[in-house]
Amino acid sequence: MVFKSFNNLFLYPRLVQYMDSMGAGADILLVEDNPNDVELILHVFQWCNLGDRIHVAWNGEEALDYLFGTGPYEAKAAGRPKVILLDLKLPKVDGLQVLRKIKENPQTRSIPVVVFTSSREERDIIESYNLGVNSYIVKPVQFDQFANVIRDMGLYWQIINQPPVEKR
Amino acid sequence: MVFKSFNNLFLYPRLVQYMDSMGAGADILLVEDNPNDVELILHVFQWCNLGDRIHVAWNGEEALDYLFGTGPYEAKAAGRPKVILLDLKLPKVDGLQVLRKIKENPQTRSIPVVVFTSSREERDIIESYNLGVNSYIVKPVQFDQFANVIRDMGLYWQIINQPPVEKR
Repeated sequence: MVFKSFNNLFLYPRLVQYMDSMGAGADILLVEDNPNDVELILHVFQWCNLGDRIHVAWNGEEALDYLFGTGPYEAKAAGRPKVILLDLKLPKVDGLQVLRKIKENPQTRSIPVVVFTSSREERDIIESYNLGVNSYIVKPVQFDQFANVIRDMGLYWQIINQPPVEKR
Repeated sequence: MVFKSFNNLFLYPRLVQYMDSMGAGADILLVEDNPNDVELILHVFQWCNLGDRIHVAWNGEEALDYLFGTGPYEAKAAGRPKVILLDLKLPKVDGLQVLRKIKENPQTRSIPVVVFTSSREERDIIESYNLGVNSYIVKPVQFDQFANVIRDMGLYWQIINQPPVEKR
């Protein structure tokens, strides 16, 4: 499958609404503030049958609340996704800070975190690896490459990688 | 490409010999004691144009010597691969011990390590993640699935993932 344009991708507002309400049982936690990127990522995952158990956190604070069962997530069980896709430039708490908190805490350390960012700055790459990121991916600029990378990344972490907690 | 059998795979003794002498400049460090697995992995990588800059370490001690420039590698520069593919059941120093030493040392901590093993025991999986493994893959039993997983894993870590040191 090759994606050639953004046509039709924005006909799915209900898709985002649904994914957004997935709650603690999600397989993927997507931490991303750009609605275009969120829409495209969810769309590719659906297209590739990579599951619809995705929760979207629109900023760093929400991601941490989701993972630690705090703030608006206080009444819910802490989320335990198979993988976290983490943008770096985020409102409220930035991505490197989110990564640090996940990897510092024994409760969340083993959850695989993939940084998915437009930054190819060496200091972001080095800092992410030093903080214990599992993988670092630079968002391609071209549309079709962007979609293909999402597909390959989704397949790898959902199907090939063995997550720390067996859910299958 | 789908692999259907082991036919023809063992016609390439020179392939292993060549890969084995790659030295410190290798992109991939393969730590594996099973010659059948080594042969197949190298063959799939070549077939997929995933580069021939692979160094094979046949036991855990050799892997550590390669990475830290000790023992027989003392006169050479320490290896700095883009990714390490690590079997767990290894002679001399076992895989979890190798992983621990890599992730404990600031010099090597940021190199991505993928455990590639036949063990799907929960304690191996949990222990690997706790030690900071980047990804954990269970070797499929079926031949074609084994080959496909090697291909997808190679593509992911060689092309999609951004390694901590930019070599491209």
